[in-house]
Amino acid sequence: MTLLSDIAGTEVAGIGLGGPLPDADVHGEKAAWLGAAAAAGLPVPPGFAIPPGAVPAVDDWLARLDAPGRPLLLSVRASAPGAARDFAPAVLNIGLDSETRPAFEDWLGPRGVADLARRQLQSWGCGVGGIHAEEFEYALFDALKAAGKDDETELDAAELEALAETFAAIIADEDAPPLPARWQDQLAGALEALPERWHGAARRRAARGEDAEAPVALIVQRMVLGVAPGLSGAGVAQTRNEASGERRLSGRWLPGAQGEEALLGLRTPRLVDGECGFAAALEEAGAAAEAALTDAASLEFTVEDGTLWVLALRPLRASARGTVRIAVDLAAEGVIPRDEALLRVDPRLLDEHLHPTIDRNAPRDRIGRGLAASPGAASGQLVFSAEAAEASAARGIPSILARIETSPEDIRGMHAATGVVTVRGGMTSHAAVVARGLGTPCVVGASDLLLDLDAGVLKAGDGRRFEAGNVITVDGGNGDVLAGRVEMVQPELTGAFATLMDWADDARRMGVRANADTPLDVDVARQFRAEGIGLCRTEHMFFEAGRIAAMREMILAESSADRQAALAKLLPVQREDLRALFRAMEGRPVMVRLLDPPLHEFLPHGQAELAELARAMDISIDTVLKRAEGLAEFNPMLGKRGCRIGIAYPEIYEMQARAIFEAACEAGAETGDGVRPEIMIPLVSAKREAEVLTALIDRVAAEVRAERGRMVEYDVGVMIETPRAALRAGDIARGISFLSFGTNDLTQMAYGLSRDDAGRFMRDYLALDVFDHDPFHTLDVDGVGELLLIAARRARAEKPDISLGICGEHGGDPASILFCERAGFDYISCSPYRVPIARLAAAQATIVEARRKEGAA
Amino acid sequence: MTLLSDIAGTEVAGIGLGGPLPDADVHGEKAAWLGAAAAAGLPVPPGFAIPPGAVPAVDDWLARLDAPGRPLLLSVRASAPGAARDFAPAVLNIGLDSETRPAFEDWLGPRGVADLARRQLQSWGCGVGGIHAEEFEYALFDALKAAGKDDETELDAAELEALAETFAAIIADEDAPPLPARWQDQLAGALEALPERWHGAARRRAARGEDAEAPVALIVQRMVLGVAPGLSGAGVAQTRNEASGERRLSGRWLPGAQGEEALLGLRTPRLVDGECGFAAALEEAGAAAEAALTDAASLEFTVEDGTLWVLALRPLRASARGTVRIAVDLAAEGVIPRDEALLRVDPRLLDEHLHPTIDRNAPRDRIGRGLAASPGAASGQLVFSAEAAEASAARGIPSILARIETSPEDIRGMHAATGVVTVRGGMTSHAAVVARGLGTPCVVGASDLLLDLDAGVLKAGDGRRFEAGNVITVDGGNGDVLAGRVEMVQPELTGAFATLMDWADDARRMGVRANADTPLDVDVARQFRAEGIGLCRTEHMFFEAGRIAAMREMILAESSADRQAALAKLLPVQREDLRALFRAMEGRPVMVRLLDPPLHEFLPHGQAELAELARAMDISIDTVLKRAEGLAEFNPMLGKRGCRIGIAYPEIYEMQARAIFEAACEAGAETGDGVRPEIMIPLVSAKREAEVLTALIDRVAAEVRAERGRMVEYDVGVMIETPRAALRAGDIARGISFLSFGTNDLTQMAYGLSRDDAGRFMRDYLALDVFDHDPFHTLDVDGVGELLLIAARRARAEKPDISLGICGEHGGDPASILFCERAGFDYISCSPYRVPIARLAAAQATIVEARRKEGAA
Repeated sequence: MTLLSDIAGTEVAGIGLGGPLPDADVHGEKAAWLGAAAAAGLPVPPGFAIPPGAVPAVDDWLARLDAPGRPLLLSVRASAPGAARDFAPAVLNIGLDSETRPAFEDWLGPRGVADLARRQLQSWGCGVGGIHAEEFEYALFDALKAAGKDDETELDAAELEALAETFAAIIADEDAPPLPARWQDQLAGALEALPERWHGAARRRAARGEDAEAPVALIVQRMVLGVAPGLSGAGVAQTRNEASGERRLSGRWLPGAQGEEALLGLRTPRLVDGECGFAAALEEAGAAAEAALTDAASLEFTVEDGTLWVLALRPLRASARGTVRIAVDLAAEGVIPRDEALLRVDPRLLDEHLHPTIDRNAPRDRIGRGLAASPGAASGQLVFSAEAAEASAARGIPSILARIETSPEDIRGMHAATGVVTVRGGMTSHAAVVARGLGTPCVVGASDLLLDLDAGVLKAGDGRRFEAGNVITVDGGNGDVLAGRVEMVQPELTGAFATLMDWADDARRMGVRANADTPLDVDVARQFRAEGIGLCRTEHMFFEAGRIAAMREMILAESSADRQAALAKLLPVQREDLRALFRAMEGRPVMVRLLDPPLHEFLPHGQAELAELARAMDISIDTVLKRAEGLAEFNPMLGKRGCRIGIAYPEIYEMQARAIFEAACEAGAETGDGVRPEIMIPLVSAKREAEVLTALIDRVAAEVRAERGRMVEYDVGVMIETPRAALRAGDIARGISFLSFGTNDLTQMAYGLSRDDAGRFMRDYLALDVFDHDPFHTLDVDGVGELLLIAARRARAEKPDISLGICGEHGGDPASILFCERAGFDYISCSPYRVPIARLAAAQATIVEARRKEGAA
Repeated sequence: MTLLSDIAGTEVAGIGLGGPLPDADVHGEKAAWLGAAAAAGLPVPPGFAIPPGAVPAVDDWLARLDAPGRPLLLSVRASAPGAARDFAPAVLNIGLDSETRPAFEDWLGPRGVADLARRQLQSWGCGVGGIHAEEFEYALFDALKAAGKDDETELDAAELEALAETFAAIIADEDAPPLPARWQDQLAGALEALPERWHGAARRRAARGEDAEAPVALIVQRMVLGVAPGLSGAGVAQTRNEASGERRLSGRWLPGAQGEEALLGLRTPRLVDGECGFAAALEEAGAAAEAALTDAASLEFTVEDGTLWVLALRPLRASARGTVRIAVDLAAEGVIPRDEALLRVDPRLLDEHLHPTIDRNAPRDRIGRGLAASPGAASGQLVFSAEAAEASAARGIPSILARIETSPEDIRGMHAATGVVTVRGGMTSHAAVVARGLGTPCVVGASDLLLDLDAGVLKAGDGRRFEAGNVITVDGGNGDVLAGRVEMVQPELTGAFATLMDWADDARRMGVRANADTPLDVDVARQFRAEGIGLCRTEHMFFEAGRIAAMREMILAESSADRQAALAKLLPVQREDLRALFRAMEGRPVMVRLLDPPLHEFLPHGQAELAELARAMDISIDTVLKRAEGLAEFNPMLGKRGCRIGIAYPEIYEMQARAIFEAACEAGAETGDGVRPEIMIPLVSAKREAEVLTALIDRVAAEVRAERGRMVEYDVGVMIETPRAALRAGDIARGISFLSFGTNDLTQMAYGLSRDDAGRFMRDYLALDVFDHDPFHTLDVDGVGELLLIAARRARAEKPDISLGICGEHGGDPASILFCERAGFDYISCSPYRVPIARLAAAQATIVEARRKEGAA
């Protein structure tokens, strides 16, 4: 073979031939799995794997593939390392030429050889020539029609020879290289062509988010023949159910077929069952494949004259639930250790356990697409206002709330709706954050939808109109908005899921808390076994009906005295809410953040609403307008919020501190649990802010102690949300007990990028690779992460026992959780619905980090 | 003296007695200056200074104060170190008692002793008892009235003795300690009481921003007697004119007086002139005092029987102009080196040289107070709109533009107005920044003014109403808004000022550039000898009439093609502006920043204006509204601005890059100066942004080179405005030539604090000491400063020759400039009107830093 040059040192590895096995990183996973399977005793036809690059001399290797008394038939397949493993061209049936034909005739008879010849041409045309398989299938279909036959197995030798001539003509017509006359040249041609075809598909890989430049190895393997005489055929099987994870072998096969025909061919495949003649062999091969892969397995097999051969095997791609069950079962069966089971499950897959999801087989009629802001799917009647959502909920009818964007006034509607879709906003817009907190499926920034609130119409990009009452579906798992109702799969929190969670809790180092503001949040947090509350945003307690009025009265107060009168109305409300919260958490830690948002967020928007407010409060519209104008800000995110409010209006934080202490005293007395509230000061940028407000809190504590004759222990901490606070964390840490990193705001300020405004260009930025990832979704380790590390180092240098954690959206993101583990944080806190994800991700982080340290040591 | 305990090691220092001199840090400046003057041969009565703390035994010291043939008379004065030196109680005339009285009678006669006795009582009552001097003055006035005499010198011995009895009664009535019978007890009482009175005035010092807890030393000195027989009296003098700085001795004195009577007494003092009998001695003392202080001097003196004595001396407190002239003259006279002259002038004083200021003696009728946002003062007719300001300017009438706050639409009005006042906004609000750039006096955040634009009325806090056309005055030097026209002092850029600037340019290391966008800016920058433009904000070129239309067309474009059509109209405009700029700068470096503000800033506000725009552009109002709504942002500061615009709409930055290159080619060809533009990419937060846009700029450069057959050299740099960019400066630096720190935005983002919204609580924060200083005014060294240092270190590690500078508002702030010197920055850039301040501050920074290094070495 003159084309093959002898290159020293190229590592060709044998499959089923002894010696070093193929390496997934070098020869691709397909080759590695085959090599391992053969070594484990599975019936794998022998072969060898050629690493990416120039093709070495392979004569010696070929010599080892001979099977006694049978002409040599070869397949060549691409085998790519890593993620780019789906598309892999192949050329089958190499070996048939005029010289070897007599030997094949002896084996297969004239019709068998004719069939092999036309298959050889098709495989060459597709694998080397890049011709679509349909071209050959149409020709086959024409031949069947002309012969008046239903099935290719009915074609006789002459008809098959005519078909082969047609196939050769197709190859010529498409300007593809003709099939070489000598089998050695067929092999050389395939070895040369397959890498070229692989690299030609770079764009397709890139479009799927895979590595376009991935190299490719080649597998040369002796073929076994599914079109041989006797019990012969080809099929696929899997050792467990891919949807449920249940351990049960299933498969399909087609007699007298080869390659992918059992999946893609014109004939209907049969199920593998007791009748098929090779079920026991397949069962045995399946068990051996699982042992070789240490995972549930998918198999491609061929039966040649009654003998089962495994041509390919890989880990089964199961559903989210299947993945969990399989991992837990494998550990229970002793195939893998528990740590490995924990690592097998991508935490994000747990969403499917926590929310209803759309059945993967259900048809989808998409009318718009946005960002998958809050997982799960929901169908319901379209509503255009918070009020309509509430009215619908009151009648027991599920609704989908559609808004341009949401504001705090929509929160009650979001509670009532079963799903939410907004036309504007990014992953951390108001709608997205609130929906995740509520566990409500939500799609935001669906900018191809036109929402005409005046006309009461939602227009799809394709012109279809949906009015209030029409049913639509939102898929918060992928960002789709769909017409009509769609089949759902309901969540499942017991069984394998519960077992996996138990193991995760045993394995993880960091605490996992929930961000929870309402009784509903707390219920979910407890249901998902959060160890405490890491962020209770007290302001959310004021948005409810009956409370917002007192809040607005407080905001519109002209003097400190008026403000205190209004605050006196809010005190019992806040105290009751907190008492219920402390009681529900039964002595687990609760971190309460003092009022954070700018006061104007509590006022209604628009002149009409403000005028109504003035009437309701019996004050002049001028006063209300003036106060609203006085509170308006150019950049509310960078305005008078957080501790700036507490310093400007100390009576507000005094009321809140009092509510916390009184509630803790009462809840502690009622339940007997020790309640030790943790009070968090938001948006600090200078040490002095923390000092002033810590002194205020201590003073209120002393007052409550004097009044009640008893007092709880408490801790005061600071939320690190500004870059300056991160840099000055050493200073700040001295006087307080904990630092909680508000990574949302820290990200906004580090990038100079508002989460609410980022949506309009974040997709472009990601598409253009300007940002590797959305920093509001996964922590920006290089920038924001460095601020966290600086802060942690400086805080601990001043106060070694200070508690450190994060409570931003990143607290539920696995990559960010790994960062927190590496930084040695004490806890993470996330939305209640992400607590299970965080528990698993924290466990994985502990395991990965321990392995890394072992590796380094 | 039993009250005085002997404490070993207490450092009493002598004045005019040889031995170690008093130390300003220990004994106070007053004592130190006196000691130095005595040592230099000035006629200073001998004495000694007691450091703060317990009073030591002083008998030995007292013994050294005896004057032969004359009874001992003593004064005790407080002498405070440092800044807290104004209020300093004293007790005079200690020494007269029943035992020493005969000796005094021998010297002064009965009337003289009676006069001394009543003076002794008054001084004791005020200095020890803390009684207001008026109490005694009223009694004196009553006595004169009763005696029918005009002047205390006319009172006879009996009348003076009666007055002394009245004075003793006042002391008794006020429950003050009575004057002790023995002079030793008088001294002990004064030594004990004065520190108590000093510490009792802590609150008063705090209210003046001085150190409330400052310790106090005491000076005990032999008294010379201005009420002695012969040519006797007391007065004050100064060696140079405090307003102009001119070298000319002047003074006032009062015969037969002592202490501060020449300044505060009931009699009218005389000028010191050739007739007074001690002019030559005073002239000589003045020259000696200047030599001792190495500065212009203020003197307090007493003449006793024809002999001049200097009782106190200190550096003259001169006006801003006087300070400059004195420093330059002293250096020219060889009294101080040039470096010292440069350090003598607080750079902020130069404002008085650069802008008209209100005459310090003019009456001020204040109607409101805000922040001193842009220095200088202006009077003019009140106008309420940019149009009215322009109309007024067209008629040649100075106007003061009053607005709630300003927006880019007001810029033409701000150009036309002679002064600006806004009701809202902080030191870096739009109005403040633009006004400083224009050199227009401006007061912002004058929140006690009520501006009713509908009624056309500006209401003062006291209820007065000012309508359009009424004349008001704004004092941008202190934030006052005044009724009517006020007397001004005009600026003066030659003479001593010019000399000082020359010396500063010789001394400084860093380059000083100006932030300049318009031809006017460039004129001012050149007039003030900026070495280049450090920040040319290209967007300001688009706000002018005739340009904003094309800009809006570009913004409203639906497609990239429409956008390019609009940009084609803007290209020649931008190119012409830049060509003029390059020509005017004659080859000096010019740093051009690509478009930075969010696009919505270029659209008008309000429905009516948008409707008018739609009509003018002949497109539907719906389209305009929809586009405006689409561009609206929650937090514009953190929105789609800076390089995010350049990445989203590359055609905009392409147009700008082309304009820069074409303008540079043309200007270079016309003038023969080498024009090497520096192109600055704004608001970078990730390396990739800089890479993408540098590639775009390089591509346009290649196109221009190809089209024109010639091309200029250019540099590309990045504006570091986000904390993340500062942290990633190493990465970012690799591909570019310079980093310019935009410290305004960096401060906003480090603190999480919008400059536009900070105004409403910054004053409280400063008053409560939450922030030491306004971080938008003086660089926050601890937080933002650390980001600058991290960025500088990382950038230089990657690219040692990278140029570093700042172009935020801090570029004109002396403390921030010192920081830049220490950080080793290459240049600073500031508003044109602050260039002289920056030049001087940079020189001082170089000198101070060199001295610090010498001190360390």
